[in-house]
Amino acid sequence: MSSSWGTHIKLSIFGESHGGGIGAVLDGIPAGEAIDLDALHAFAKRRAPGNSLASTARKEEDLPEILSGLVNGITCGTPLAAVIRNTDTRSQDYRRTQTLARPGHADYTGYLRYGGHNDIRGGGHFSGRLTAPLVFAGGICKQILEHRGIFIGAHLLAIHGVQDSPFDPVHLSQEELLCAGKRDFPVLDEQAGHRMQVEIEKARLACDSVGGTIECAVLGLPAGVGSPMFDGVENVLSSILFGIPAVKGLEFGEGFGVSSLFGSENNDAFYMDGEEVKTRTNRHGGILGGITSGMPLILRVAMKPTPSIAKEQQTIDYVHRQDASLSIVGRHDPCLAVRAVPCVEAAVAVGLLELLCMHGRI
Amino acid sequence: MSSSWGTHIKLSIFGESHGGGIGAVLDGIPAGEAIDLDALHAFAKRRAPGNSLASTARKEEDLPEILSGLVNGITCGTPLAAVIRNTDTRSQDYRRTQTLARPGHADYTGYLRYGGHNDIRGGGHFSGRLTAPLVFAGGICKQILEHRGIFIGAHLLAIHGVQDSPFDPVHLSQEELLCAGKRDFPVLDEQAGHRMQVEIEKARLACDSVGGTIECAVLGLPAGVGSPMFDGVENVLSSILFGIPAVKGLEFGEGFGVSSLFGSENNDAFYMDGEEVKTRTNRHGGILGGITSGMPLILRVAMKPTPSIAKEQQTIDYVHRQDASLSIVGRHDPCLAVRAVPCVEAAVAVGLLELLCMHGRI
Amino acid sequence: MSSSWGTHIKLSIFGESHGGGIGAVLDGIPAGEAIDLDALHAFAKRRAPGNSLASTARKEEDLPEILSGLVNGITCGTPLAAVIRNTDTRSQDYRRTQTLARPGHADYTGYLRYGGHNDIRGGGHFSGRLTAPLVFAGGICKQILEHRGIFIGAHLLAIHGVQDSPFDPVHLSQEELLCAGKRDFPVLDEQAGHRMQVEIEKARLACDSVGGTIECAVLGLPAGVGSPMFDGVENVLSSILFGIPAVKGLEFGEGFGVSSLFGSENNDAFYMDGEEVKTRTNRHGGILGGITSGMPLILRVAMKPTPSIAKEQQTIDYVHRQDASLSIVGRHDPCLAVRAVPCVEAAVAVGLLELLCMHGRI
Amino acid sequence: MSSSWGTHIKLSIFGESHGGGIGAVLDGIPAGEAIDLDALHAFAKRRAPGNSLASTARKEEDLPEILSGLVNGITCGTPLAAVIRNTDTRSQDYRRTQTLARPGHADYTGYLRYGGHNDIRGGGHFSGRLTAPLVFAGGICKQILEHRGIFIGAHLLAIHGVQDSPFDPVHLSQEELLCAGKRDFPVLDEQAGHRMQVEIEKARLACDSVGGTIECAVLGLPAGVGSPMFDGVENVLSSILFGIPAVKGLEFGEGFGVSSLFGSENNDAFYMDGEEVKTRTNRHGGILGGITSGMPLILRVAMKPTPSIAKEQQTIDYVHRQDASLSIVGRHDPCLAVRAVPCVEAAVAVGLLELLCMHGRI
Repeated sequence: MSSSWGTHIKLSIFGESHGGGIGAVLDGIPAGEAIDLDALHAFAKRRAPGNSLASTARKEEDLPEILSGLVNGITCGTPLAAVIRNTDTRSQDYRRTQTLARPGHADYTGYLRYGGHNDIRGGGHFSGRLTAPLVFAGGICKQILEHRGIFIGAHLLAIHGVQDSPFDPVHLSQEELLCAGKRDFPVLDEQAGHRMQVEIEKARLACDSVGGTIECAVLGLPAGVGSPMFDGVENVLSSILFGIPAVKGLEFGEGFGVSSLFGSENNDAFYMDGEEVKTRTNRHGGILGGITSGMPLILRVAMKPTPSIAKEQQTIDYVHRQDASLSIVGRHDPCLAVRAVPCVEAAVAVGLLELLCMHGRI
Repeated sequence: MSSSWGTHIKLSIFGESHGGGIGAVLDGIPAGEAIDLDALHAFAKRRAPGNSLASTARKEEDLPEILSGLVNGITCGTPLAAVIRNTDTRSQDYRRTQTLARPGHADYTGYLRYGGHNDIRGGGHFSGRLTAPLVFAGGICKQILEHRGIFIGAHLLAIHGVQDSPFDPVHLSQEELLCAGKRDFPVLDEQAGHRMQVEIEKARLACDSVGGTIECAVLGLPAGVGSPMFDGVENVLSSILFGIPAVKGLEFGEGFGVSSLFGSENNDAFYMDGEEVKTRTNRHGGILGGITSGMPLILRVAMKPTPSIAKEQQTIDYVHRQDASLSIVGRHDPCLAVRAVPCVEAAVAVGLLELLCMHGRI
Repeated sequence: MSSSWGTHIKLSIFGESHGGGIGAVLDGIPAGEAIDLDALHAFAKRRAPGNSLASTARKEEDLPEILSGLVNGITCGTPLAAVIRNTDTRSQDYRRTQTLARPGHADYTGYLRYGGHNDIRGGGHFSGRLTAPLVFAGGICKQILEHRGIFIGAHLLAIHGVQDSPFDPVHLSQEELLCAGKRDFPVLDEQAGHRMQVEIEKARLACDSVGGTIECAVLGLPAGVGSPMFDGVENVLSSILFGIPAVKGLEFGEGFGVSSLFGSENNDAFYMDGEEVKTRTNRHGGILGGITSGMPLILRVAMKPTPSIAKEQQTIDYVHRQDASLSIVGRHDPCLAVRAVPCVEAAVAVGLLELLCMHGRI
Repeated sequence: MSSSWGTHIKLSIFGESHGGGIGAVLDGIPAGEAIDLDALHAFAKRRAPGNSLASTARKEEDLPEILSGLVNGITCGTPLAAVIRNTDTRSQDYRRTQTLARPGHADYTGYLRYGGHNDIRGGGHFSGRLTAPLVFAGGICKQILEHRGIFIGAHLLAIHGVQDSPFDPVHLSQEELLCAGKRDFPVLDEQAGHRMQVEIEKARLACDSVGGTIECAVLGLPAGVGSPMFDGVENVLSSILFGIPAVKGLEFGEGFGVSSLFGSENNDAFYMDGEEVKTRTNRHGGILGGITSGMPLILRVAMKPTPSIAKEQQTIDYVHRQDASLSIVGRHDPCLAVRAVPCVEAAVAVGLLELLCMHGRI
């Protein structure tokens, strides 16, 4: 209950921020897939802290050690397990001295959920650090999808009101899809990226943080994958995407924009492009009735501002049940959306591999 | 694969629009719960067509026959099954004469998914009619939650740009929560409702349709329910909410609004209200780290415009693989969001009962 | 929780013996499968009461009405639902007058499990009658397997000490496999069958009942299906076979016999039979490491004697918590193993279809 | 797919015999449980090789390193992960030089299942060594059950025809239940144990191996736990017990013995023992209708002889598809049933914790 996902592809994520280690077990992936470890590490690095001003100054390696499931770089079909050591583990006994609920964090809800037994050091299992094993697992799945011509890319669509260019939902090229992932700051329009970074830096200097929106797209997905009702593409992807801490919203295709459209605007006209079925617009985001249409899959995810801010905040002491105030010290990402870009790609990769396996397509 | 949901509460929905009948099996609900059949039927009626100008003129009864799981009006703990007959079933053989992909529908994707064998009469299993068994199941779950002081309400927040008043996320009263459900047109602000109905009628007269946004809230949920990662409140609810046809987006609390906020704005300050822990604002929507905080649960769902419109549309014949044009005859809801309001409540009810059972709270 | 099974093939069984109806929803089966309804009914009839002296004199039709999932006799890929009416439903209110725990039945344990709310009329959801929807679902799955050359057969291996000939585990022919299913009394050796029927009749006349063992085999299964650990053939089949009431034991291949063998006796020597890999003996029962070997799958199931016997028995009143004695009136099968033979075939059929779908083989 | 189990308690086991390490993630266990690491290691040691003549001479430590889920010896409610290093890992590249199918092993079926990509070194993921993480997980669950007065014990009931005394199914004391687990050779009757050891040694000297039967019992289980149909105690336990390699049969209570009994013999008479409901005999093995009765839970498991024997055997080369002969060198347990005793206890512990959580009892 809580940290296991999937039925064909089964992902189990474990670990606390300051425990012995964190990691993932990925069960159900096909045998015989060559895994490029350099590419896997490059993908993990996109999530790792310290890449830019937008992220915390702390440097970690976060390189996973693969314990099983891979022989000579080839998946053997049995569970793939990886461990990432927490190098800053302090061995001293732990006492619950921290009893103030950090606003926007799960301190208070976690305290209730686990009867006061959860590991609160560094956020414990709630820590954003737990996205490292997700990125590891997603990195494996991404490569398996790429072997079949399926490519996933994402970028920062907006940061505190500054907009990047959106993906072209109809004519999206592989080059456009993957370009943000190759940049230090994951945007399509580098000018917009500069303005975003200015916003982030301003927030940081103000002891504050900012939120953002991530757009993700997928090219090469076969049409006909998914199901109506509860195993639709949206159901499967949402159930894993909301596992990324700080996600507050998710939309596919036109998303919330459909609310103000006419049907005649929102319906995408089909046409034959030679032998291929396409739609002239792509407000459906590549999914109709829970099933892929063959058009690019498009989704967007809303990421809240980093809740850890240096500004003084009003809160409570949840053990002594009294009001209190709090300033959070230490370096934190002033905008967690930046490092969340590969997390979104990773979650989508795991979800799509699940869907493809569900249909015997892989 | 496709139409079964849940692990503790297991919901299996079956049926095609023009088959012998549709229905649901709801397994795992607690024994000893008194079910008020009148209230159940009143809830089902909110989804039924023919209630207002906004919905199709066709009248159906849609009263489920309960076959099992209920003895003298009390749940006996074993699966609760209900069947709703399709009274307009025509017995003549069925031939795939309809081979045009209606834009915005799953005709083409369903054809691919089921190799041409899916029942296309009236949309088959993709039909919005399949939300009737969901509403039945949700109606049962709603009553079980109400026995524990947990209440779910929803309303139309927007239709084609016309806004209803939002729920007060902090001081929401039970009266406000439930008032839209008692009205013919489910809004909080009846003036806004009138303007929405005008928009819908205008669309209908233009042979078109409009989309909308539904807001749903929950009062009385205990704090501490849910989990980090993959069994969070958002994951569980999203996995069932995206099972309602036409949902294109879902957000919790501030939702996509977080993208343009500072952390200091988005963080909700905790305080002690006597013995109770509360937050002064409720941008987190009652969920922190996937776990309920005790504040009202708030979510919003984007519903696309009814894809069936009388206006001529460009499309393809997916069997003969050639371009075509299409006008959809027959009466259809010009705004499916209206009848989707109880569907959202139903999905949330099933999802929350699952979560509460998962934690041994029920 | 309780009456739903499977991940790819999802089976949900509902109903109580004296409620409105019983039935099953079978989700996840492939589209495009032609279902022979006559064969389905013939299979169901093997389980129906009244076929022989060995079963209760009560006659029921038990013909399922298929509500969905089938169009013109072809599966459409969406859930297949069927309802079997309880024709003897009495509408009068139900009161818990029966508070004596019938030995060998689930009256007492069901009372605890459901807090006294379970439907006890005719055994409620615990009734052997609930195997009718299992046989329906299994009948569908059997036909889908037969389309792929996979055949399942079973027979009574033993009744109260009288032994039938076992299946030849190595050279089993399709004719031998299926012959018991075509007989009124499902045995391979009709002489043994006569002696079994004498035993059953003697038990009946003595107001008693007898137990039995059922052997089931499968021909045509591809090699390489299954998995080590928890998704092995044995795990999957056992999880559904123990859903048949009265099953107390299950063994594969040599089963409990392995306990007294040497490794050199129990190991089956592989050899090449032309292009095919075979084993000279088949103590492994067609499964090695949870995975099919291509040899016939062989399993045996122990069925306890019908617990309902006319002989006076000592028991308790579980509501008033005092000792009592009891004689069970009414006609009951003196040997439920006889009618359980198609139930075992049905459970194996559902289980194998799940396994084949899990591997994308179907 | 394959090595993950459970819905409330989720167990994910990973690793190959000669990979970097093996381990388990145990998700869903309650928070606040004190884990006695010494007791955990003592339990693991019962499975470890080298304890007696009956097991391989190879010595391993097999002490798991716990990476997460435990803070100061108390479960924190988040996943508990442990890694056991493979100390004999050789780093040289691996080539599939071994292409002979060892009879009784999964070499051939694994080759088919994983398309030739599975790790065959030391049996890979099929190795009996993979029961070490199961024993770790089961050891944790056992302690959590013991905190609630639920105790699990097992012993060798038979080895190659030599019988140990069975557990008294009615008056089983905790002392009797746990005594075999405290002995070097896990039997109740030490004389029988000596004779078993003689059989094992004889087999070893003959370059052969022997099978056995393990009996397991549980005391202290509350009555009313389990469900009819597919979530019964038998279904849940069988689905994990068949995950132990070499298990070929499983029976509950009277098991296959029911086949030759009258109903009047097999039915257990209920009576009031003061305030408690008991049965005078316990042929039902503590389960009626899939639900615990409060009497001791009794089950037996058949373990095949170790397939690795030094005697020459006939087989095939499954890559070159030709007949071959084979002698397996190296030291192997001549009777794997001995070390499987704690594995059975472990699997039962995980299964029961799942069932208790499913019912909100924990």
